[in-house]
This record gives sequence, C-alpha cells and structure tokens, in this order.
Amino acid sequence: MLTIAGRAAVDRAGQTPVFVYDPAIVAARIARFRAAMPTVDLHYAIKANPHPGLLAAISPLVDGLDVASAGELGRALAVKPAGAISFAGPGKRDEELAAAIAAGATLNLESEGEASRALAIADRLGQRPRLAVRVNPDVELRGSGMKMGGRPSPFGIDAIRVPALVRHLIAAGADWRGFHLYAGSQALDAGAIADTQAATLVLAARLAEEAGAVPPLVNLGGGFGVPYFAGDRPLDVEVIGERLDAALAGRPAVLRDSRFAIELGRWLVAEAGVYLARVVDRKESGGETFLILDGGLHHQLAASGNFGTVVRRNYPIAVAHRMGEEATETVNVVGPLCTPLDRLGDRVALPRAEVGDLIAVFLAGAYGATASPSAFLGHPPAAEIVT
Amino acid sequence: MLTIAGRAAVDRAGQTPVFVYDPAIVAARIARFRAAMPTVDLHYAIKANPHPGLLAAISPLVDGLDVASAGELGRALAVKPAGAISFAGPGKRDEELAAAIAAGATLNLESEGEASRALAIADRLGQRPRLAVRVNPDVELRGSGMKMGGRPSPFGIDAIRVPALVRHLIAAGADWRGFHLYAGSQALDAGAIADTQAATLVLAARLAEEAGAVPPLVNLGGGFGVPYFAGDRPLDVEVIGERLDAALAGRPAVLRDSRFAIELGRWLVAEAGVYLARVVDRKESGGETFLILDGGLHHQLAASGNFGTVVRRNYPIAVAHRMGEEATETVNVVGPLCTPLDRLGDRVALPRAEVGDLIAVFLAGAYGATASPSAFLGHPPAAEIVT
Repeated sequence: MLTIAGRAAVDRAGQTPVFVYDPAIVAARIARFRAAMPTVDLHYAIKANPHPGLLAAISPLVDGLDVASAGELGRALAVKPAGAISFAGPGKRDEELAAAIAAGATLNLESEGEASRALAIADRLGQRPRLAVRVNPDVELRGSGMKMGGRPSPFGIDAIRVPALVRHLIAAGADWRGFHLYAGSQALDAGAIADTQAATLVLAARLAEEAGAVPPLVNLGGGFGVPYFAGDRPLDVEVIGERLDAALAGRPAVLRDSRFAIELGRWLVAEAGVYLARVVDRKESGGETFLILDGGLHHQLAASGNFGTVVRRNYPIAVAHRMGEEATETVNVVGPLCTPLDRLGDRVALPRAEVGDLIAVFLAGAYGATASPSAFLGHPPAAEIVT
Repeated sequence: MLTIAGRAAVDRAGQTPVFVYDPAIVAARIARFRAAMPTVDLHYAIKANPHPGLLAAISPLVDGLDVASAGELGRALAVKPAGAISFAGPGKRDEELAAAIAAGATLNLESEGEASRALAIADRLGQRPRLAVRVNPDVELRGSGMKMGGRPSPFGIDAIRVPALVRHLIAAGADWRGFHLYAGSQALDAGAIADTQAATLVLAARLAEEAGAVPPLVNLGGGFGVPYFAGDRPLDVEVIGERLDAALAGRPAVLRDSRFAIELGRWLVAEAGVYLARVVDRKESGGETFLILDGGLHHQLAASGNFGTVVRRNYPIAVAHRMGEEATETVNVVGPLCTPLDRLGDRVALPRAEVGDLIAVFLAGAYGATASPSAFLGHPPAAEIVT
C-alpha cells in the first residue's frame, strides 16, 4: 500500500480527488541542495506550488521567495520578510509595482518601460525602490524543457542594453539589487546546467563591469528538472554543486562581493506531491480497457500532456493498494471530462484496479492544482492536503 | 473602434481583462440553424460556456440543454425543465447519477457499469430513471479537430453491445429515451458532417432494429466548427440542413416516430464572445516587438495554442480602436505569465498599439474562461459581462 508521510494513502484520501503534499520531502530536497551548494542562497519560486500550508513549511528553510504576481506577493509576505522576496514577470501592472514597492520587495525589472513606471511610482510613494534587472541572457540552457534565453523574449532586458539601465537606476537613486538571469527550465542534464551557470556568471561579470557597479545579488536562475517520464534520469545536483563551486571560486573580481542565488520551483516540490483519484468506472471498448477516474486534466493538466508538451507521455502512475505488485493488464487511465484530451495514463501497465480503488499520479507537487483549468465542465475542485 | 452590441469596446472594458458576450449573436446563430434545419431539435452543450447570464438568454431559444457534470446540471436546472436536460460524460459519480435521477433529467449512459449503478440508484430513490444510451459509433467524423468515434473510447458503449443494453434497460423498467451519438468536434467541412449524420442515422436505425425498440430521441451529436485560423472557411450549415433533410425524409421505418436533435456548443457561442485585455508594456527584444497584456493563457488557454492543438496558430486579434486600419508592424502579443507558453499572437501584423490600448481576441465565447487555468501564477480572474 502506498504510504504518504507514514500513513496509508487510503487514509489520506477521504475526499477524492485530492493532492497530498509532504513537506518532509521538500525539506529533504532542500537539505540535499544545501549540502551540494553550500555557498549560494536558495530561493523558492512559489509559482510551482503556492499552497499556503506548504509555503509556510518551506519558507523558513529557504533564503528567499520569488513571486510572479501581486497575488503571489501577498502569499509570500504572509510568511517571509519583504527584503527576502523578489517579484519577476513581464506585464506587471502599476498596482502590482506599487504593492511591491510599498512592501519593500525587490522588483526584477523586465523592460525599460517597466523601469520607468517603477521609478515614477516609487517617487509618488516617497519610497526608495529595491530594483533588480532581469537579463535576457545571450546564453540558452541546453536540453531544457523550456528555453527562455538566447532569443527575442518577453522576459528580461536584452543583455546589450542592461548596463545603461543599471547606471540609470543607480543615478535615479534606486536601491539596485543586482541581476536576475533565467535561461530555461526542466533540464535533467547536470553538465548543461553547470555550463549555463558558468556562462551566466561570465555574463553577469561583464554586465557589472560595463555598468561600473557591483551587483549585491546575482540570481543565477534554476532550471533543475525532475524525471517525469520513463527513461528520464534524476538530476545529479552534486555535479552541479561541484562545478558551481569551482566557477564561483574563480569568478571575476567584480563579483567578489556579490551573493549568488539559485531559484527553484519544480525541483523542490514536484516529488513531494501525489494526486489521488478514485476509479468511478471500468469499461471495455474496442478491445481496450479504460479506468475512468473522478479526477483528470481539470486538476492535473500537465499530467494529461496538454500543457507545453509536444509529445504526450505518461507521468508515473500506480494503483495505491498494489504498490510493487506486478502489472497484469494494460489500461487507459482517463478523467471524467467529455474530451479525449482528458487522459492521465495512455496504455499503461498496471495491476488490476476495480471501481472504488485509488489511483496515484506522482510528481503532482508542482504545477498541478493552480496550473489546471479547475472550473472546466463544472466539476468540483480537488482538495489539497499538507501532511 | 470595435463595437460590441452597439457600444464601443472601450466602454465595455472598464475592468480588464474581460470577456464580453453578446446574446444577440447567439440568437442570430440559432435563427440561422432553425432556418437550415427546421425539423430537428437544437440542444445547447453548456460546457462551451456555462456563464449564468448567457445561459439564461440562450435557454428559451433551444429545445434542450446538455450538461457534463452535476455542477452544470445545477446551472441548467435553474433555467430549463429537467425533461429538457441530458447529462453525458464518462465517470459520473454515484451522487451525480442520483442528482440527475432525482431531478428527472436524462442520463446518457456511457458504460454498462454506469447503467447498473443508475438502475440501482433509481431503485433506491423509488424513481423511474430517464436513460439514453451513448453509442461509441463505428463511424468517425472526417476533418474534425477532435475525433471521438470509430475507435476504443471512454465515451459511449461500443455499438455492437448497445442493443442488448437497451433491451436490459427497458426490461428493468427504465424510461428509455433513445440514443446519443457523437463522432467529433470542430469540423468545418459541411460534406463530412452530412456524411457522418447520414451514417449515424443508419447506425441508429440498425441499433433500434436489433434492440426491437423505437428510440424516442436520436441525438445526432454536433461537431459544427468555427473558423479560428487564417484560411479557415466558415461552416456551410445550409448544406448540412439540405442533406440532413433528405436523409431524414428517407430514414428507415424504425425511426419514423423518433425525434432528432443536434447538440451544439462552440458553433453557437464562440463568435459571441470577445476577450479584451490592455497593453501593460511594449518592449523590444532581439529585433522583435512584444506587446505584453494584462491577460493571457490563464484566461484564454486555447487561444495560446496550449489546449488540444498540435501546431500553434493565432486566433483573430485586433487593436480595438484601430479596427480596419492597415497593419504597420509585426508584433508578438503575450500575456503576463512567466512562461513562453503565454502567447496570444505570434508575429501578428497589427496597427500600432501603445501602453494602455485595448487588444481584442475574438472567438472567445466558447471554451475560454472556464477552460483555462485561472489560478495560475496568482493573477486575478477575468471579468465576464453579458451585454
């Protein structure tokens, strides 16, 4: 039987569908990160999972929280001092800029236009704004599921224009906090991440030289992936740590007094979450067997393969009371929605499951509940439980 | 200037982002349908847009409402008698079956297991259940955006097993309401739809003969598409009407006393909705221009190309106060989310738009607000207005 934080999954699943999050797993990930990368700060990108209970458990264990909206800023301020919060994202509205400046959070500026609006709002509020510059790096993270650097982008300011902006911010009296660089996400190749970090460090040093200013903090981004699919290998963070340590030891003089941060979302929380749903129907059609669950893509869009994936593949999935048993049939595991898109397991080999049995979809701790169309077709939302 | 129901879009857009729905456009679609297909019933599949105000406006104009969950059933019962409501969808939970039976709505059964559960629940409630059988047809809708027939499927019961189930339902004392057949959706080829309808009619007659029972209603499905993309041609419903009229006139004797229904969602409401968002930032990167809006895929997932589409293409998009003006630049229109997926217009030619200007994304009346991950990244939901 699948256990979650020492209790049987069936006991956790009074009401299905339900996401169950185990903060102890997040704490273990954080401990592993700290051992591998002892000299850098760790930020949690709360967009991966902003559940208040989980956030309260994670916050004391990390050095900073990164937010992507005024809504997330509110959640972060409930558990962390504003000085440890940074706010990134294109298209920040004036009221969002004002909320961050008034609270004292750091804004990661995404364009010169946003810089102008932020300075004007700070002036109006009579506050010295904490401003970092998000750089659209001219390096790209090889092998990442989602590339976010090295091309025309809504994210960050093209590297070539960054030094002038930094000088302008400092001249305008802002509290310049440094750089934010983000080259991609969901990468499983430690060497590629290490290469990107090294290139990012070189870029940050060059920009600092050209700006004539020492960045208090260089946020090196994240991109640490998790193994969602068969054949994926877990990321070797110890290799990243060794190479980052070497790169930092040999960093250019201009960055001598800078701090460095890694910003992680998915890698910290994905494996700490399980999505549990019950079999409502078991049917045969055209020679195939379908297990129809009481939950589906309206709660777990990414697991259905409909969110940013080109080729649909199955997330790890199991029959909760038959863990470790041999598979005896090949089934399609689908949700209750009237659309063929609502499929969580396509021809997956499982032990036999009957109506009423509990199905577990793993790696549900990141980009699940909040990244899914929960109002679609009028089904109830999933519950969320922190163990 | 774009006008919506006679008023300027800017007047409608006090709060952005906002979906604006015009029931007069839906009424015009319904009138066109009635003229083209005067002898068949028209059902509205409320999953396409269950907004209560819009639903209240549509309900008196259609013969039935099709729902996909207990949540949708509740909305439908607020505006329509239960006898005109049918409930389809795999994985109906016991409490959903009970709610439909208690109310007197028709259940479109999706499996033999569901049939057993429905009969047992009806027995417990002391009610004669209204039960139709959803058939997994052995025909497929050519050219549909989403095929839902002719293959192993979670939807409906394989045609070969349907007659036995119908006999069982009737023997068990149920009020058997007939057949529901659905072969695909979002088709723009009138000939393909007409072919499918004709084949569906033949199949329904064969199943009725084999069951030895006359179906009171044959729901022929829908599948009527709308032209989302450049080069798409609007559906010629008049051609469908002519061919359906001929097919019905020559229908097999067993269906002489049956009624027929077409079930439409998207075709009725998609063009009646506009999504309006404001430009928050205008920036240059790598030689490209980005308009960054205060809304994006968290409200309009399908328009971002991330919901059931293989190749991303642009929905029709415009600068609201420059309708009909010549395009003067090529821009990327993106939302405020920290993900490259959040793109509503990829290299689209538009007249110039500045910060504060209103951008209109058309065909937003179907599968918009409820089919999008509105909680993603903590941004506020879009407003919804019925004119």
